[in-house]
Amino acid sequence: MEKLTLVKVGGKIVEESDSLQTLLNDFMMLDGYKVLVHGGGRSATKLATRLGIESKMIDGRRVTDEDMLNVVTMVYGGLVNKKIVAELQARGVNALGLTGADMNIIQSVKRPVKEIDYGFVGDVEKVNAQLLSLLIQQGIVPVLAPLTHDGQGSMLNTNADTIAGETAKALSSFFDVTLIYCFEKKGVLMDEHQEDSVIETINRPDYEKYVADKVIQGGMIPKIENAFQALNAGVKKVIITEASQVLKGGGTTIVL
Amino acid sequence: MEKLTLVKVGGKIVEESDSLQTLLNDFMMLDGYKVLVHGGGRSATKLATRLGIESKMIDGRRVTDEDMLNVVTMVYGGLVNKKIVAELQARGVNALGLTGADMNIIQSVKRPVKEIDYGFVGDVEKVNAQLLSLLIQQGIVPVLAPLTHDGQGSMLNTNADTIAGETAKALSSFFDVTLIYCFEKKGVLMDEHQEDSVIETINRPDYEKYVADKVIQGGMIPKIENAFQALNAGVKKVIITEASQVLKGGGTTIVL
Repeated sequence: MEKLTLVKVGGKIVEESDSLQTLLNDFMMLDGYKVLVHGGGRSATKLATRLGIESKMIDGRRVTDEDMLNVVTMVYGGLVNKKIVAELQARGVNALGLTGADMNIIQSVKRPVKEIDYGFVGDVEKVNAQLLSLLIQQGIVPVLAPLTHDGQGSMLNTNADTIAGETAKALSSFFDVTLIYCFEKKGVLMDEHQEDSVIETINRPDYEKYVADKVIQGGMIPKIENAFQALNAGVKKVIITEASQVLKGGGTTIVL
Repeated sequence: MEKLTLVKVGGKIVEESDSLQTLLNDFMMLDGYKVLVHGGGRSATKLATRLGIESKMIDGRRVTDEDMLNVVTMVYGGLVNKKIVAELQARGVNALGLTGADMNIIQSVKRPVKEIDYGFVGDVEKVNAQLLSLLIQQGIVPVLAPLTHDGQGSMLNTNADTIAGETAKALSSFFDVTLIYCFEKKGVLMDEHQEDSVIETINRPDYEKYVADKVIQGGMIPKIENAFQALNAGVKKVIITEASQVLKGGGTTIVL
């Protein structure tokens, strides 16, 4: 199978002009088939504030009422997505901006209300990667916004990490997929105060040892658990790194 | 060649829930390949007002400065487009929301400044219909927002009638295209005070006679001129009618 790289970048990178330009220059240079998944939370919060709509977060997750759903649909699916697409086109990358509703690529269920009602937030149910992979083979570079739909006419706000992971898994039937999660550090650090103490490779036994030793803790645990889940589902390689390291091949590689 | 119907509807229809539902129910029932092109000007003006951005119109055309470009990118490419896509998916129509930047479908030039500087407004230069037609043949129904790009990284606000006409022309190499322009009347009227005095068919000699007799005047003249231009470029049939008549096959048919 041919190689495909799926890069997930958060809002911080794509919402600032300088870091976006750098990212897209690097992304343009990546060899082989590729897919970009982006966030946009800061811009959504900013627009919501200007519209007098309160941004309510619980455990870092956005509560999405109807007004906020309109805001994220505009910001993620319109403003941020189309800016990236236009900029990639200018670089000769034949980008196609998509939400999960487009071509029914990602269908979700509205998150069931337990203690917390997150509103119009989607839990991914199914990724339809066949038509997507056909387009990729035609030279198209999908740019995915963190939005899905419920199959009943409503868009759903959906975690970009989840979209990246689930899309990578689905594309594994068609390509050798490398999934790159960009975050604010160069990789998983052996010592959190040493920016350059990046652990090059982590396998399952390493991971368990690092967790026991508290080298890996907090928010890094679900990130790596997701990585293992993706690997178990057929993704070839998961890399956790800083956006600036994507082209250089830096970061921490998670393997089974 | 197989039949394709391209329907263009203005903002008034797609921005009100009732008329949108009716339109999409009818659109769903249309036989054969199809494409939807939509407006969204009212929602853009509404959002701009809420954001304290002034909507400046000259001769019914929106002057688009950078702030307004962000507004229309959000509203046309995000809010309105994704709402339609999600609603069509709920009806089993495999919709794909697109701007001209996506897959480089429609490239424009920023309108040259003569007496008036319209800002980030695009004049369509080239429609790339090959990949689009491939997708249509795979069962995809494109939903086009009135946005294009300049190939240099910027989106451009672009007239929806123009997008409909130019896309219909480009698709004529692959399909037998019927182009339907929806507006607020049932068709071209013999007597403007008689809603049912729809002229069934107009050819070029008819048209010239109606213009001489002042039956056809004002804003209808550029509409019909555009229709003839589309027919000359290979479109099989152009129909001017009300959104509610699309499925019924009513309206005025323009032929060469």
